[in-house]
Parts: sequence; C-alpha cells; structure tokens
Amino acid sequence: MAKLRIYGELALFSGTGSLDLATKIADYVHVPLYQREIVTFSNENIFVRLKTSVRGKDVFIIQTTSSPVSHNIMELLLLLDTVKRANAGRITAVVPYFAYGRSDKKDQPRVPISARLMADLITTAGADRFMLVDLHAGQIQGFFDIPGDELSAFRALSDYFVSKQLTNAVVVAVDLGFAKKGRNFAERLHLPMAFIEKRRDADKATVNALTVIGDVAGKNVLLVDDEVNTGCSVKEAVDILKLQGAADIYLSFTHAAFSPDAYERLGTLPVKEIVFTDTIPVPPDKLLPNMTVLSLSSFIGEVIRRVHEGESVGAMYRDSDP
Amino acid sequence: MAKLRIYGELALFSGTGSLDLATKIADYVHVPLYQREIVTFSNENIFVRLKTSVRGKDVFIIQTTSSPVSHNIMELLLLLDTVKRANAGRITAVVPYFAYGRSDKKDQPRVPISARLMADLITTAGADRFMLVDLHAGQIQGFFDIPGDELSAFRALSDYFVSKQLTNAVVVAVDLGFAKKGRNFAERLHLPMAFIEKRRDADKATVNALTVIGDVAGKNVLLVDDEVNTGCSVKEAVDILKLQGAADIYLSFTHAAFSPDAYERLGTLPVKEIVFTDTIPVPPDKLLPNMTVLSLSSFIGEVIRRVHEGESVGAMYRDSDP
Amino acid sequence: MAKLRIYGELALFSGTGSLDLATKIADYVHVPLYQREIVTFSNENIFVRLKTSVRGKDVFIIQTTSSPVSHNIMELLLLLDTVKRANAGRITAVVPYFAYGRSDKKDQPRVPISARLMADLITTAGADRFMLVDLHAGQIQGFFDIPGDELSAFRALSDYFVSKQLTNAVVVAVDLGFAKKGRNFAERLHLPMAFIEKRRDADKATVNALTVIGDVAGKNVLLVDDEVNTGCSVKEAVDILKLQGAADIYLSFTHAAFSPDAYERLGTLPVKEIVFTDTIPVPPDKLLPNMTVLSLSSFIGEVIRRVHEGESVGAMYRDSDP
Amino acid sequence: MAKLRIYGELALFSGTGSLDLATKIADYVHVPLYQREIVTFSNENIFVRLKTSVRGKDVFIIQTTSSPVSHNIMELLLLLDTVKRANAGRITAVVPYFAYGRSDKKDQPRVPISARLMADLITTAGADRFMLVDLHAGQIQGFFDIPGDELSAFRALSDYFVSKQLTNAVVVAVDLGFAKKGRNFAERLHLPMAFIEKRRDADKATVNALTVIGDVAGKNVLLVDDEVNTGCSVKEAVDILKLQGAADIYLSFTHAAFSPDAYERLGTLPVKEIVFTDTIPVPPDKLLPNMTVLSLSSFIGEVIRRVHEGESVGAMYRDSDP
Amino acid sequence: MAKLRIYGELALFSGTGSLDLATKIADYVHVPLYQREIVTFSNENIFVRLKTSVRGKDVFIIQTTSSPVSHNIMELLLLLDTVKRANAGRITAVVPYFAYGRSDKKDQPRVPISARLMADLITTAGADRFMLVDLHAGQIQGFFDIPGDELSAFRALSDYFVSKQLTNAVVVAVDLGFAKKGRNFAERLHLPMAFIEKRRDADKATVNALTVIGDVAGKNVLLVDDEVNTGCSVKEAVDILKLQGAADIYLSFTHAAFSPDAYERLGTLPVKEIVFTDTIPVPPDKLLPNMTVLSLSSFIGEVIRRVHEGESVGAMYRDSDP
Amino acid sequence: MAKLRIYGELALFSGTGSLDLATKIADYVHVPLYQREIVTFSNENIFVRLKTSVRGKDVFIIQTTSSPVSHNIMELLLLLDTVKRANAGRITAVVPYFAYGRSDKKDQPRVPISARLMADLITTAGADRFMLVDLHAGQIQGFFDIPGDELSAFRALSDYFVSKQLTNAVVVAVDLGFAKKGRNFAERLHLPMAFIEKRRDADKATVNALTVIGDVAGKNVLLVDDEVNTGCSVKEAVDILKLQGAADIYLSFTHAAFSPDAYERLGTLPVKEIVFTDTIPVPPDKLLPNMTVLSLSSFIGEVIRRVHEGESVGAMYRDSDP
Repeated sequence: MAKLRIYGELALFSGTGSLDLATKIADYVHVPLYQREIVTFSNENIFVRLKTSVRGKDVFIIQTTSSPVSHNIMELLLLLDTVKRANAGRITAVVPYFAYGRSDKKDQPRVPISARLMADLITTAGADRFMLVDLHAGQIQGFFDIPGDELSAFRALSDYFVSKQLTNAVVVAVDLGFAKKGRNFAERLHLPMAFIEKRRDADKATVNALTVIGDVAGKNVLLVDDEVNTGCSVKEAVDILKLQGAADIYLSFTHAAFSPDAYERLGTLPVKEIVFTDTIPVPPDKLLPNMTVLSLSSFIGEVIRRVHEGESVGAMYRDSDP
Repeated sequence: MAKLRIYGELALFSGTGSLDLATKIADYVHVPLYQREIVTFSNENIFVRLKTSVRGKDVFIIQTTSSPVSHNIMELLLLLDTVKRANAGRITAVVPYFAYGRSDKKDQPRVPISARLMADLITTAGADRFMLVDLHAGQIQGFFDIPGDELSAFRALSDYFVSKQLTNAVVVAVDLGFAKKGRNFAERLHLPMAFIEKRRDADKATVNALTVIGDVAGKNVLLVDDEVNTGCSVKEAVDILKLQGAADIYLSFTHAAFSPDAYERLGTLPVKEIVFTDTIPVPPDKLLPNMTVLSLSSFIGEVIRRVHEGESVGAMYRDSDP
Repeated sequence: MAKLRIYGELALFSGTGSLDLATKIADYVHVPLYQREIVTFSNENIFVRLKTSVRGKDVFIIQTTSSPVSHNIMELLLLLDTVKRANAGRITAVVPYFAYGRSDKKDQPRVPISARLMADLITTAGADRFMLVDLHAGQIQGFFDIPGDELSAFRALSDYFVSKQLTNAVVVAVDLGFAKKGRNFAERLHLPMAFIEKRRDADKATVNALTVIGDVAGKNVLLVDDEVNTGCSVKEAVDILKLQGAADIYLSFTHAAFSPDAYERLGTLPVKEIVFTDTIPVPPDKLLPNMTVLSLSSFIGEVIRRVHEGESVGAMYRDSDP
Repeated sequence: MAKLRIYGELALFSGTGSLDLATKIADYVHVPLYQREIVTFSNENIFVRLKTSVRGKDVFIIQTTSSPVSHNIMELLLLLDTVKRANAGRITAVVPYFAYGRSDKKDQPRVPISARLMADLITTAGADRFMLVDLHAGQIQGFFDIPGDELSAFRALSDYFVSKQLTNAVVVAVDLGFAKKGRNFAERLHLPMAFIEKRRDADKATVNALTVIGDVAGKNVLLVDDEVNTGCSVKEAVDILKLQGAADIYLSFTHAAFSPDAYERLGTLPVKEIVFTDTIPVPPDKLLPNMTVLSLSSFIGEVIRRVHEGESVGAMYRDSDP
Repeated sequence: MAKLRIYGELALFSGTGSLDLATKIADYVHVPLYQREIVTFSNENIFVRLKTSVRGKDVFIIQTTSSPVSHNIMELLLLLDTVKRANAGRITAVVPYFAYGRSDKKDQPRVPISARLMADLITTAGADRFMLVDLHAGQIQGFFDIPGDELSAFRALSDYFVSKQLTNAVVVAVDLGFAKKGRNFAERLHLPMAFIEKRRDADKATVNALTVIGDVAGKNVLLVDDEVNTGCSVKEAVDILKLQGAADIYLSFTHAAFSPDAYERLGTLPVKEIVFTDTIPVPPDKLLPNMTVLSLSSFIGEVIRRVHEGESVGAMYRDSDP
Repeated sequence: MAKLRIYGELALFSGTGSLDLATKIADYVHVPLYQREIVTFSNENIFVRLKTSVRGKDVFIIQTTSSPVSHNIMELLLLLDTVKRANAGRITAVVPYFAYGRSDKKDQPRVPISARLMADLITTAGADRFMLVDLHAGQIQGFFDIPGDELSAFRALSDYFVSKQLTNAVVVAVDLGFAKKGRNFAERLHLPMAFIEKRRDADKATVNALTVIGDVAGKNVLLVDDEVNTGCSVKEAVDILKLQGAADIYLSFTHAAFSPDAYERLGTLPVKEIVFTDTIPVPPDKLLPNMTVLSLSSFIGEVIRRVHEGESVGAMYRDSDP
C-alpha cells in the first residue's frame, strides 16, 4: 500500500505527567516534542500556550492521568482546548494511564460512572481520537463516541515471562475481575491457572475472607493484575499463596499507580520480581531492587506512526490480513 | 417522603416482543396496556400508530430484543420515534433482554462496538431513560448518555436456590467472564466456587480445551451464567463436570436467548433443573419438564412504579438510606 | 480543474443486500471490493469484521435496504459503526433503495416519521455523507444533517423510452403523488399526460374509486411510478386504463421492491414491457419475460468516482457550469 | 381523562409579525398576551426584553415569517433565545406561515435546503416544540428533530365551500405539486377534479405552455393552492380556464403571501371569490371586495390549549380514539 | 401569581469546597443539606455517593472552584454526573467562584479559552442550569448553552459603603478592565472616580509603569476590583495612591481568591478596611483585623428559592415588572 | 516549514454585503471570486446557487453583517448551508463586521445574548471556522465552539497615527468599555490617556452626565472607539472635550456602522480627521472630506492565505515563535 499522509505533519506534545515517556516516543518517531508553556499560576489556574503553530497538523497529546490526578486531567483538557482552538487538523489524546477506569458502572445506587464522564470530558475538550493502554475494562472503549485505539501491554509483559522460561508454574489472577485476562497469560505461557477469591462482609466495607481456587502448592506463581495502587490486595494474595505453599512468586501488571505507601508495602513482600511498564512514571529513587520496568515507548510510538501514516495498526497484532 | 408525580400519568406500551411480560407488568401497576397498532406491511416496513394520546405522559415502552432480533430492534426504535413525536412527557425504553450485549468492546481490530451502537440508536430514536436487565457487562450502562436503571435477576434467582437448601454444593461459573458474578451467587448461598476455563486454538476459531479449576468431585453443582443461546457451552461444561464426578447439576441464568436447536440440546443434558427468567418469552410448548421460569414482572413493575412516582429505586436493594 | 484526492484511497464495501450491484460498481471504478466478514450468529446478532485496514480511506458502503428490510438496515448500521471505529477518513452510505421512504410525514396523529428516523440512525452510526437513488420524496434529503447526493434513474429510464420512439402515446402517473415526476417523463418524451385518481372510503381503509383524468382512449400508455411493491396499484391502474380503451401499456419505475406475490400479479397483466433498475436485486429466475432491468452501476460508479476525486457531480446533469 | 398541567401557566408572546392573530388567539384561550419590548435600534439590531417572568412557564411564541421575511425570522430567533435564557419551562414556536417552505430539497446542484436550515435555526435558538400551518410539503415536519404539530386550514376552507353548495363544479389544482391536496378538496366536496400542467423551456427559466388536464368546460371551478405570492400562476390558470370555457371561478388557498403587486393583479381577475386565512396579516385597506378571510385563531388557540393541558390534539380530527 | 412547583422537592448538595456557605444557604431555605459521601481514594480518584434518592427532584449543587482548584472542579463534575445518573428532575450548578474566569478570550495566539471549556465541562457533566456570582466578564454567561443566573455582590458591597457615608471620597478602579463596573460603584455612591493605568514592557512579562488618571490627592479612596489573588496589584495601587496623597483607603472586592502569601501582603498595607464576600471560604484564623466578610448566603438562598418556586428573580433587582 | 495544503483549492465567495472588500481580498490571494447567484425572490426569500463545484475545497465566505442586517445574516446562513450541502472540504465564515456584538451578556433580566445566538446560527448553518474583526468584546470568540481567528485593525490604525507623529497629545476613550483597548493605543503611541465617563439617570433611559477623567486641556486628542453608529456618543465626547479646552481632535475606530443620519452628524463635528477601515462598505458619495478609509483587504487576505496553506497566523503578530 502506498503511504498516504492525510493530515499535516506529526506534532507531539507532552503534558507534565508524561514527559519521560513522551520524550522516548518522540525519539522513536524521529520528531522532536513540540514546545509548549504550562504554568500553574498563583491562583492554581493552569495556563497553557503552544510555542509553535499547529494549523492543520496531526497532533498527539501525551498525558497520563496518574498522580496528581485532578491536576493532570485538567491539564489534559486545557491542552486539548488549546490545540483545538489553534486549528489543528486532527487531535489524538494519548492517555497511557486512564484515571477513574475502575469507576466504570453503577454497581450501587447513586454513584457516578466516572470513566464515562472522563471520556465525555476528553471529547468535549476537543479530542478527535483516543489512544489508551490496558483499560480496567475493555468496554470503556465504548464510552467514547470518537474512534481510537486501546493498546495492550500484554505482549510486552508475556514476552518477558516467556523468555524467563518459568517451570512448574501457575498463573494466578489477583482478583476474579482479572480472570479472563489472567487466562490469556496462562494460555500464552502454556501454564495452568488459579484464582484468588475475595468475599466481603455483610456491611460490604471490609474484606473478610480470601480463598485460593486451583492448585498452587509447591509451584512457582506468576501473579497478574492490571494495576497496583496501595499494594494491599497484592500483599493479601502473596500472604495466602505462601500459606498454601507457593514457591517463587513473580508479580506482573501494567500500571504502577502507586500510592505513597505502596513502595514500603511492596518492599516487604517475599516476591522475586515485580514487572510493570512505564505508563506511569516511577521516580528512579523509589524503584525497588526487584522491580523491572518495561518501556512501552517504541510500541506506542509505532502505533502513533501508523495512525499518522494511515497504516494498519491491527497488522501489528495479526499476520493474516493486510 | 410525600409522593410526587412529576410527569403526566403512567402509560405502558408493549412491542410485539414482550406482550406477555408487559401484560403482567401492567397488571402489577394496575394500569391497562395502552393500545397501539403495529403492522408489518407487505414491503416489510413496520407501521406503528398509537391509539391514545400520550401528550405529557410518562411513557414506558417494553420491548425485548430477542428473536426476531433485527425486527424487534427496528420496532423498538419506531415506537420510540412515534411516542417522541406524539409529545410524550418522558420516555423510558424498557428492554428486558438487550441484544448485542456481548459485542461490547473491540477485542480484535476492525469490529464494531455493537452494544454502544444499540445505546446510541435507542437514544437517537427518542428515549429519555433506559431500563435494562442483567447486562452482559455492567459497563454497558455507561454506553448510554441518558440516565437509567439496570435491574438484576440476581435476587430472584439466588432466593430460589436459597429456598432449595442445596447441601454439599459448589457454584460453578460456566465462563471466566462470569467469575465475579458467579462469586456473588456463592457468597449469597454460602458455598465454595469453581470455574470452567476454556482455551482456544491458535486460529481462535475452535475451542480446544476445558479445565475445571476448583473442586467439584462428589458435589452438587449450581452452574451459573447470564444467558444461554445454543446451549453448547453449557453442554461442554456439564460434560466435564460429570467427568470430574459432579453429583446433581442445577443450571441458572437470566436470559433464555434460545436458538431453535437449544431445546433439543438442553433436553438431553443430565441436569436436574434449569432455572431462568421471563426476560425473553419461551413458547409454553417448548418448555422442558425440568425448566422453571421465574417471572420478573412484579420486580420490573415495582421499579416502573417507583420511577414514575419519583420514589427511590435504590431503597429496594438496601435498607440503610431513605 | 486539477484532480485532487482529499482523502485516502477509495475503499468500497458491500453489505449482503447489494452484492451484485456493488460488484458492478467496483468494476466501473476499477477498484476491487474490500473484503469483510458478515456473519449472522445463532443468536441472530450480526457480526461484522473488516479484513483490511481502512485508516484514513475514503470509504463507500453499498447496502440497499430492501427485503430482508430490518436485517439489511441493522447490517448497514453495524458496517458504519465498524468503519467509523476503524478510523476511516470519510464514510459515505450508499443506499440504492431507501426503506421507509413512504413514511415521510405525520399524515395522521401519533405515527412516526420513519424516514427521518432512518436518516438519524444512519448518521448516528457514523456516516459522513449519504448517496441515495430516487427518494419517494426529494425532501427526505433534508432529513439528513450531513451532505449527500440523491441520484435519479430518470435519465436512464427516459432515455430508454426515448429510444423506443413511442407514438400516439400518453404518460400516465399511477398516483397523484407522482404527478410532478410523471410530468418530467411527459416533458422529456414530448407526450401529453394523464393521471389515475384514487378516492378512499370514509373509513380510509379501502380504496373505492379510480378515475382516469385526461385522455387515454386508443393511445399507447407509459405508466410511471417510483416503486412497485405488491403490484396491486399497478393492476388497478392497468385495469381502468384498458377499460378506457388504452392500447399498448408500458410500465416504468425505479425500484423493484417486489413482495413475494408481486411476480404472479405482474405476470398476469396485459402490459407490453416492465422496465426498472437494479437498485434492488431481483433473482434471475423470478424475472418475467417482459421485464427489462437497466443497471445503474456505471452511473452510481461514476458519481462515486467524482465524489472521491472531488470532481463536480452536478456537471453530469448540466453542461453550463464547470 | 383528568386534566394535567405539566408545565407552569400558559404564556403567550407575539412577535411583531403576528400581533392581530396572536391577540385573537389570546382572546380564545382567555389569557392576555404577555408584554414584551421589541425595538429595532438605529444599527438595525433588534432588541428584545420580556416584561414578565416566564420561569417554568409553558411559553408559546407566535410569529409568522412573512414580509419583512428576514426581519421576522431574526425576531423569532431572538425571542426564542430570550425566553430560553429566561428559564421558561417549555417553548413552542408557533409559526403560522413558514418562510422558505418551497426550498425544501436540492432539485438542482449547489442550492441550499433552506427549509431544513429554518428548522435548525428555530431549534438552535431554543424551541422545544413547533406549531406550523399547512406546510408546502408535509415532509418539512421531519426537518425538525423536536416534536410539534402541523395544523391544516383544510377543514376551515373546505367547510366554507361545503356551505357554498357549489353545483356543476370541478376542483382544479393550480399546480401538479398540489395534486394530492387538491384531490382532498374534491373528495370532501364530492366533485370531480382537473389539473393545470405547466411545462418549462429548455433553459428552464420561462414557462412556455399550460394545459388543462380534465374537463372544465361549462363548469364552475374551485381553483386551489397552498399560497399565493405574485398571483402570476393564478392569473395564468384563470386565463386558460376561461379559454377552456370555465364558468364561475373561486380561488382558495391558505397563505396570503402577497407581494406588493399581487393586489393589483388579483384585482383584475375574473374570479368570483378569493378565500384565504389569516396566517399572514393583510392590511384592511388592501383587501379586495371579493376577498374572504377565514380566521384560524380559534383553531390555533384550541390546539394551544390542548397542548398546554396535555389533551389530545389528534382527537380534534378523528372521533374514534380517545 | 400562584406559586407553582414544577419539579420535585428542593434538594441541596454541597461539594467539599463550599460547606459553610451551603449550610447557611440551607438554613435560609429551610431545607437540610442532603447527605452525600465524598471520599478521595488512595489513588486520588474522588468517589461520590448520594445517601438519599433524588429522583425527579430539583437539585442544586453548591461547589466553589477556588483552591484546591483542579480537585474542586473534578468534584463538581463528578457530583453532576452522579445526580444526573440518579435521575434528578433538574440540576443547577451553583458555583460561587468560577475558576478560569480570567482566561476568557484568546488575547495571544495558541492559548485556550479556559472559561468556555469550564462551561462546556459543567454542561457535559449534566448541569441543566448554572448559577454564578460576579463573573470576571459578564460575557461568560454566553459561554453556556444552558440557561442560568449570574448574581452580583454589587448591591451587598455598595450597600455596605452607602451605610459608611464616605465623604470627600473617590472610587478608584484597580484596573482598566474594571472601569465600567467601578463606575457603577461611583454612580451608586454619588462619588467621582479615578483609574489606575498599567503599561507593560515590550517583553510583556513585567509591569513597568503605573499612573493614576483622575484626582485623588487628599481624598478618601474606595479601591474596587472583582477578586484579589496574591494582592500584588492591590499593593501597587495602594502605593501609588498614597504617593499621590490619598487619605483613607478602603478596599472592596467580591472574591477572596487569596494565594497563601496574600494574607501577609494585605496585612502590611495601609488600608483602613478590606471588604469582601464569602463566595470563597477564608479560614477564620487567617482573617485580618481590618477584614469584613459580607455573607451572600441569604441572597443566593433567596435566588435558589425563587428559581425552585418559579418566581421571578429579576423582580429582586427592579420594581417595575411583575 | 514545508507548505502543506490539507484541503482542496482555495475558493472565495462573497455575499452581497462585502463585494468590494471580497474583490480586493481575491486580488490579494490571486484567486478570482467564485461565481454564485444570489436573488431575492418576490416573496423576499433569498435564493442562492453556486455556479462552480466546491467539492472538497477550502471555502471562505466573506459577508459582513452590517445594514441591511437581518438580510445579510440570512444570506450568510443560506450561503453556509449551500456550501455545506455542496460537499465543501472546509468552510470558514469571514464576517468583517459581526452584528449584535454589543448584545453579549444579560445585563438586565429577560434579554437575549444575541451575540451567542449569532455564533450558534453560524455554526448550525455549517461553518467549520470563523474569521472576525475587532469584536466588541474578545470573549465573543468563546461563544463559538468551532475554532477561528479574531483579527484586529489595531495595528493598521495605530500605524497610521504613529506616522502622523502627533505631539502634545492624549488618547481618549469614548467609553469606559473601551478603556483597556484605548490604553493599547496610548501605549503604542507613547501618549498619556484620559476617559469620558457617562452616568445614567435613575430610569436608565437617558444619559445625564459626562465627565472627562484625565487631562485634555490644550492638548491634541486622539478619540478612540471600536465602532460608530449614529455618531451621538462621539458628538457628546467632542463637545465636552472642546469645552475642556482640547486642541485638534482625531477620531479613530474600526467599524463604520453608520446609521443614515450619522453622515450629517459627523459632518458638523470640529474633528480634524476621521479614520476607520473597510469592514463595512461606505458609499463613496457619502464619504466626508475628512474621512480616511484604511483597507484591511491585504491583512484579511494574508490571514486567509495562511489559514489555507496551514501557516502560522500568530507569526504575523510576534517574531519569536515559528
């Protein structure tokens, strides 16, 4: 297929939440990050100014929505409005970590569907397309009326463990909500799987009982989840796995949405290796010795390049179709 | 709280897909079904005419979207447009079975998100609110921009099995996608749980391997799912459960989305009882001897009454808040 | 004018309703039809998957909405959603026969305006443009908020009869609603015209009286309409025309929206020739000996080519303006 | 049915284009016109201010869009915006004569669909509902996304001629576009009908030939149309009817959209009576002796009352349904 | 006018930003604040849950958007989504201080119009109406497509100074942008006025010159502005006024949008009294001895009551119209 | 930066309100004005037809909305609809003078925000972008949801007076609303400034008192405003300035929105020179001897060229950024 460039040149912007990742992506696509001024005034209003014209260009705004969450969201929305009013040709919101992804349905009366609100805010502010990584639920794609791409760190993470050649192992999903995605790891690694089941008290406030369903005794465990926040769920899982006689435990997830106390909690766990990606920046001085960070920058960069060039993104996943 | 009626009187309409259920709901709320003419012309165009004025009224249109699926969807959309243009005060689309619920995300390149499309079509045609029962994924609520209620048959189904007082039993989820909802059954019935895991071939077309994770040997099994279509998955599950030594098997699901050959397949299964609801009409002559149909008509009727009266629907679920 | 291609390359898709016509159109524009998978599952949900990337491309989806009507409509909507979410550059819905075109106004209380609903559904599902052929009323163009083209088979049909060199003839409109369009045939063929007038009973259900207004005795008749469904109106018209002494009768219309019993009814009519187009596929084995099908494939293909190339479509109709 | 008032009290406003009609409507519904200030500043900007609160009220804005057309349209739009921003409960745009109704489709390349634009402007400005009288094409209803009512002067006009007891008469449609509506007059009056057919020159600019289709010699003629502008078409029709031996000629239409020279032209015609309604104000000193104006004020007033009270409007037309 | 309640009962909610003010407003309208849970999770996602049903009710959400600005905005948006999806009858966003009000136009290339974005976000999240106090520019009203009310503290502040009976005084606008509003104070107090004019350096970064236009020597000064942030502008103004011989200086503004260092800066100023309102909460321990806080709670409460009851709000300002 | 043309070729249309200016702009960009037919029918409906295809082109419609205001607005809207439905690639509404700009907020109860309505009408009719000159308030930019450019005549007008080398001069703002923009003139010309302050009577209908704030005695005055309509404000200002001993008076403004009597009023004023631009056409025979018209055609033309070519417009104002 002849290459076609249907919009103006590729313009990459980074919010303050994703500077490192955006810089690496820019390296991959061989385009320098566009300069912009982002200042928080003394009245806490965020001011944005682009230093270069984006008229007609194919703009990608890279901004994760991890901590400081509200600030990063507002910054993303203001960047979108700025680029829209600056007459960009097409605008893609690249949000490596999508906040409020766990608030994706009304599972009790009178709560919001915050993830849908997020999708609407991003669209209202001016995005023509979205690019997200490993949503808590794939259905969140459908919260958007605009087209977009959900990328997955599955191949990066599973490749890593394929290369580890784990033997006598079992894949364990931290949570039943991750059961289907956990199965994909087990399938890829040709391993059996097991689950941690949690039950809640009558008042639904405190967790009271964990069970391991499936066989883990004497086996190495690959414990999988989509994101880690405080590390409490992981700690509970590791505790019960060890109690049931698990051998080495490896932990794998996409988003390091660590709360301030997560580092200490994870640091005390009897876990051989903690593997995650760079959708959320982790300060180098906070990294534990057993942590491995896989960068998604070339992957995201390649998808951006293909979107910009009008090439198939699906072809990255499957070989059959052109 | 004083009762307040914020719209005109309650007006119930039924599409041709839900006549029985709608009649029962009308009985519950003590309002006769409004008359309407629905004719399919010789050119297959569906013609709709309301026989009574709905100006300012609080209209509920009850129409399931089971077989004939495309026809029932078009009929629902035309009913909505008719009621909208007839100047109704408020319009709620009551869709006991929501077609295309399983097509809720792009899990491969270049497929639609049909469930989001369904939500958009219903909104475009004129619905102000939705009322749905046991969505394949709760996130589908967020596909709607309009407010609404997702009802659950969980209490009706679990109450039924509580009263059965199953002993030496285990709850088994037919599918890992139903793991979390299956856990709710286990929790309510104070039973352990197990899962059926399916893995697929490289070409992703045929299923090649089933595993039972958890312990079922010598136990009675409550096999749970959200809907049954051809019955093939259920048959595979029952086969492997029996192979693993399961005792009596009960089958429970919300939506009897039976394909024509499902009756024969289910009829041959060594299952003690098949329990489901009337979100989809099953012809009486097709009902198997071991099938039990729980009607949701009073439940849906009560929710409609509360929505109409402006009373809390959440209060039906929890006792704490007013 | 220099040719400009403002979108990616031309991509033609066909729904299952227009395979033959789409194949001929693809021949005309020298582009093979894009491959797609369209499967109806056992639960009657329609599954769509594109086999090739359409990122940034100029996509035309060709799908008529004749029988099976509801199915064909849903398929069209799902194709649109799929192509939209697959990031097409521009999407044109090419609907050779537009269902529900006769339901274009509220001519009695509490009926829908189904044609407007159709326009909204098509737009909601993702169409950027429409392309339709001989609408029942030209005003339906205005039901769309998106731009588009209404093509007319008038030139193809009238050319055919010009070449027939009918003498001692009169053009007769089957229905007063076709009076103005019938006049165009008469004008083009330099023939006088007459009308069939129908009056309805008090209860408006049954037709009770037909009158021929204008002179047909001893004359050859070209009976014109936009579409034929059951053939009943045509039969009544032919009966009264013969009664009034008409000589040879020719029948001309655009859309062969035949109901199953239409073939037999038309087969018994004393009509010399029945001429229509291929906006709706007619199975070859159903074609009557006196039927002539004029293909619109080159015409539609040429319009698609011009739209894609950014050339004037209007220039096909008039010579004056560039 | 108990009466229900779903919005605040009824509030009637008149634009400057419909003061007389609005005053009569206000009389009918026993509610004084609400006071408003409408001033055209020296810079031709129109200023609107409501003198009374309309918070939560059920507002009807009565404004015809006859001459001065652009001014009256802008005034209507500004009134709508004012009432919307003043927090009205519901807003109905009552437009007795809908300008641009004849520009309802693209019948040649690169022209607007002005009637759709009108519908969009009215909706954008804030109307929740519309109320229109005898549209040039009923399909214009479908140009609106909001619900509404199209009223018809047909009963008022046909009642008038029923009471005239015309004998030896024929109904003649001025134009083939009015053929179907003309048939309704003929049906109601139990008279035969005929048509005037016009053909155009090759350059489509000038009319070159009129024909009468049907029998008028020696008969009294009821010449019917929807509106009269310059009177040229009517004059041509009368000329040829007289040439063909018509006896007395009566002229009936809904909208007196007279251009300044229409009075003189109509004044010279050999027509016994010219009957029309007050959807457009005609200055008393311009009225010709043979003109009869039927007021639609009670009819429109009754519909407004019913809409406000939530009563059936359809029931005014048919007796069957409640 | 009879009182009409067009929605369900009045329901007041407060975000965490406006608890004190909301409590006082609730006192005024004699309705307790509705209970809601607002929690910030360890992942910084804000969780909202209403403890009472709001079906059909007339909900007012009171939430200022002062510091922490991004957090307060997100909380407001989530509250709106929650209330919308909980099926409220009508939703009014009451935002006493509207953040980003100063970013109301593109006064240089490639900046956002943040205030318009704010309006869009609030509307997207579910507000049907807005209620704001003393916008930086009144035009921001027009950024909203929904109706609403802009309240003004002008009467409260000017009443206060009328009662002070300042003599030998002059009103001085801190900034030319406040010139017109400053004139209103001068007019109300029957005082002359003067202005502070600032000019900027070529590089537009630093202010280089202040001038007093008008006569202040020996006069008491009422220095007026809409909001105070760091207090730098006020300090510069006071310095030059003193330099020009001003006697006593009083400072008046609506919004105390104080940055952390504002208290110290204002504390050192030779200003007799600093008067502002409670649109933004100021911690009691931060209040300076010469600060006077005028509460707008009864004013806002009265407007809420009138909006709820469907009474005129305009009538609070002028006596003439009903 | 390489030039990129993201849409089809540049197509310029002029409404009847801006023929001269549009012709000059066309000269500047070296593209002939596209031909269109604009006819006002005898029923005052405006008919528009484009004589050339605009498929995929980058269309700019130049139409001022000065007198006849309502007509010019409708013509603009119809042109937009025509171009949209003719499948243009991108549509920019170039409105050199934006009517209703002074009606930009609700400064009293129950008035419209007409300028927002104008923005919505233009967007609804089909504009993708706007281009406006010197809005009454810059915030009106934010009334548009579409991107666009506000151009300013400030440089043209201030350049002119820089070249005049006025000495012993002062800049005076006619009105406090122009205070900030007046300051920009003073800053650019390195002159001091003064203001005219107007106070209104209690009934707010008549102006009762003017004051000059600042020093004008013996000085030459540059009196600045954004537009002049009747000339009354200017006359009052000149009167009081002369009374206070002003020497030569120059008058500068952007928009000559002259009412018919403005010429006579301005003709009698003791003003040395009246300088304005051609955003509104002034008939040559009406021009007074002391009037100087600066054409903005090259400026607007250059901005159109840059927008079309995707070049930075901001770079015309500042040198720093690319």
